[in-house]
Amino acid sequence: MTPLGIGKIALNLALLDDDATDYIKKYEAMDYHLIKGRVGTMDVKKIFAAVETAVFREDMIRENYHEEHALYHAISEALAGYCRGSVALDSVLRTTGLEFAVARGELVVDHSSGGDWIAVVLYGHIGSPRRGFEHEAIGLGIQSI
Amino acid sequence: MTPLGIGKIALNLALLDDDATDYIKKYEAMDYHLIKGRVGTMDVKKIFAAVETAVFREDMIRENYHEEHALYHAISEALAGYCRGSVALDSVLRTTGLEFAVARGELVVDHSSGGDWIAVVLYGHIGSPRRGFEHEAIGLGIQSI
Amino acid sequence: MTPLGIGKIALNLALLDDDATDYIKKYEAMDYHLIKGRVGTMDVKKIFAAVETAVFREDMIRENYHEEHALYHAISEALAGYCRGSVALDSVLRTTGLEFAVARGELVVDHSSGGDWIAVVLYGHIGSPRRGFEHEAIGLGIQSI
Amino acid sequence: MTPLGIGKIALNLALLDDDATDYIKKYEAMDYHLIKGRVGTMDVKKIFAAVETAVFREDMIRENYHEEHALYHAISEALAGYCRGSVALDSVLRTTGLEFAVARGELVVDHSSGGDWIAVVLYGHIGSPRRGFEHEAIGLGIQSI
Amino acid sequence: MTPLGIGKIALNLALLDDDATDYIKKYEAMDYHLIKGRVGTMDVKKIFAAVETAVFREDMIRENYHEEHALYHAISEALAGYCRGSVALDSVLRTTGLEFAVARGELVVDHSSGGDWIAVVLYGHIGSPRRGFEHEAIGLGIQSI
Amino acid sequence: MTPLGIGKIALNLALLDDDATDYIKKYEAMDYHLIKGRVGTMDVKKIFAAVETAVFREDMIRENYHEEHALYHAISEALAGYCRGSVALDSVLRTTGLEFAVARGELVVDHSSGGDWIAVVLYGHIGSPRRGFEHEAIGLGIQSI
Repeated sequence: MTPLGIGKIALNLALLDDDATDYIKKYEAMDYHLIKGRVGTMDVKKIFAAVETAVFREDMIRENYHEEHALYHAISEALAGYCRGSVALDSVLRTTGLEFAVARGELVVDHSSGGDWIAVVLYGHIGSPRRGFEHEAIGLGIQSI
Repeated sequence: MTPLGIGKIALNLALLDDDATDYIKKYEAMDYHLIKGRVGTMDVKKIFAAVETAVFREDMIRENYHEEHALYHAISEALAGYCRGSVALDSVLRTTGLEFAVARGELVVDHSSGGDWIAVVLYGHIGSPRRGFEHEAIGLGIQSI
Repeated sequence: MTPLGIGKIALNLALLDDDATDYIKKYEAMDYHLIKGRVGTMDVKKIFAAVETAVFREDMIRENYHEEHALYHAISEALAGYCRGSVALDSVLRTTGLEFAVARGELVVDHSSGGDWIAVVLYGHIGSPRRGFEHEAIGLGIQSI
Repeated sequence: MTPLGIGKIALNLALLDDDATDYIKKYEAMDYHLIKGRVGTMDVKKIFAAVETAVFREDMIRENYHEEHALYHAISEALAGYCRGSVALDSVLRTTGLEFAVARGELVVDHSSGGDWIAVVLYGHIGSPRRGFEHEAIGLGIQSI
Repeated sequence: MTPLGIGKIALNLALLDDDATDYIKKYEAMDYHLIKGRVGTMDVKKIFAAVETAVFREDMIRENYHEEHALYHAISEALAGYCRGSVALDSVLRTTGLEFAVARGELVVDHSSGGDWIAVVLYGHIGSPRRGFEHEAIGLGIQSI
Repeated sequence: MTPLGIGKIALNLALLDDDATDYIKKYEAMDYHLIKGRVGTMDVKKIFAAVETAVFREDMIRENYHEEHALYHAISEALAGYCRGSVALDSVLRTTGLEFAVARGELVVDHSSGGDWIAVVLYGHIGSPRRGFEHEAIGLGIQSI
């Protein structure tokens, strides 16, 4: 069996229907730091801002550019996956509501890769600004930090 | 709570560590057709071929261009998410091993949207062709069919 | 000779200099539904909105997400062709005036492909917001519906 | 009425079902140089090669890098439109058969813009390498030369 | 040794820390026209506008569409390099301060290529709108004119 | 005056016409590790391979995935800039000969940003596989390591 990775830890958190408290505690015991949040917007930069704000508020990364840069790239890659190519919402008449999950820790459970990694997952619905005219999307970005 | 969508049904199938038989049966009872497969390659077109072959073999879509075209676009969007932008593997010195899941049925459980939809998920590892130098990636494409 | 396709039917409509009434009638007799319209803007989303509004007003598609999603993707592909890659106007200091044509019917005249298709053509001029500093562009998107 | 442009001259040539001889002569009398050709391939670079070869053989451009560079960019833009974004065929399991038309002359009939322009049109069918599983596509690239 | 090209002439001008007067004079004697300027913005179109304005003010190009089109494409390619792919700033929560250099003349010193070329260089810093959270970027676009 | 950054250090090394020994020594005294190399190819992955091989041979990065991943992304961004968007050579009938420079150290001279950064520069000529039908290109990628 493939050993459990930081990506799947963050993906399962984003997809979790129930309260996330127990899930987060379980992985804290394995030295992962996890958060989950929510944002609805037509404005791509508000997704960057929502994830960055949550990460800083929970002290998941140090307040230096080294770590902020890794986080920015992880969000950017998650958005490229979420939008499936060109990163755009309002400009192409789309809106979105999504949940994000962020995990920090080893790339693979019980393996040392020489430093921490950060995984950002965006999972939600994207579509026309008309109720019910939307479908699901997901994106995952992983960076060394 | 957000009602369950075809995307999450396919995502959870792709992320499932255990044998998928029970999971697939559970959703068959709710009129979803699900499959799961695996492919390892440096060649992007082999991912298209592996998913299309599995879908045709399991009679998930009818053998006409109308449905094949929707499947092609769903795979293409999943790949854009998996590669986070430009769809390329060998040409940028990357290789991948992944599991794919495909779901066909209503967009949202217990809601009629006027026809079937198809969701394609790719989940696996992407990286340099060197053992352990790889991280997880995911992609989801959804099309009406 | 290649049989006539829905793309060429829509392309010739968009390129027609004369009044389109007779052209549209001719293809209605062959079970195609055609419309033609016009939009000038620096704002990409107004092109989506103009085409969608015209299509709904003429009852070319049913008011469900299944069909709206196919239309959205057809417009999106036409725009990718029109802008030759990245879909952007105002943000890259370009403006456009264009005519759009939409066709619904079989993919190829006198061939059944298992359902209707929709073709969207955008033809016009793109350039700097300065009179005469612009050249022609075209885009075609085709989706099963 | 919008004055006739080099793009529409090339588009109508590419879309012409009949023999092109009279059409080409008509525009030669208006100082346009036109050619039409055909290529079928899964290999993007063969489309570049086919158009460049035809253009050089017909002496449409001078054998210097200045003019070859403009032609290359016009083909490249036409391909971006034809593929609707990422320029790829075999690598994404698609094949194509297309007709190309190239026009050289003023940007707009009877207007001097300070030099010649070149317009490249690609019109054809793109799809899976399976008979009938393909639809139409078009691309237009225009460059000053 | 590779002969000196217009790209390196513009790159070295953009990277020059000292006053550019002598550098510009030296290449004027070799029939190159050079300018250098500066712009800070979150808005991509202001970079187009700043470069175009400086070029027109210094009479580097003739006021026709033929030459303006070449300049536009050179800026556009420089921006694609500067942003490393998708051209976006504010929409992805990035800001920039940059110096631009533009050169017009032969492609290679002492070689005739059949007409002038234009090279646009953008060199500066790109990052979050937070002091010190930014790194360098560069872009070069070259077009025949 | 803007303080000197790792990007400009690598850019000037790539653009240097003379022997690089003294330049490299000067920055070694300021705790930067620099290398310069050369590659000519139509195959994008050979550029990745050439830079990675040189970096490993000179022990610029540790042999773990954490650092290799940062290097890979820096090369990838440099290539996106070098190709001005889509990363492709042979598939779009282009070839290249280039010099690469890699720098490792602080982001800005005499400023601590909380860890090392890596800057990759590609500078060379890109064009048709025909002598003299080519122009200069540059790309710069910077990652925290």
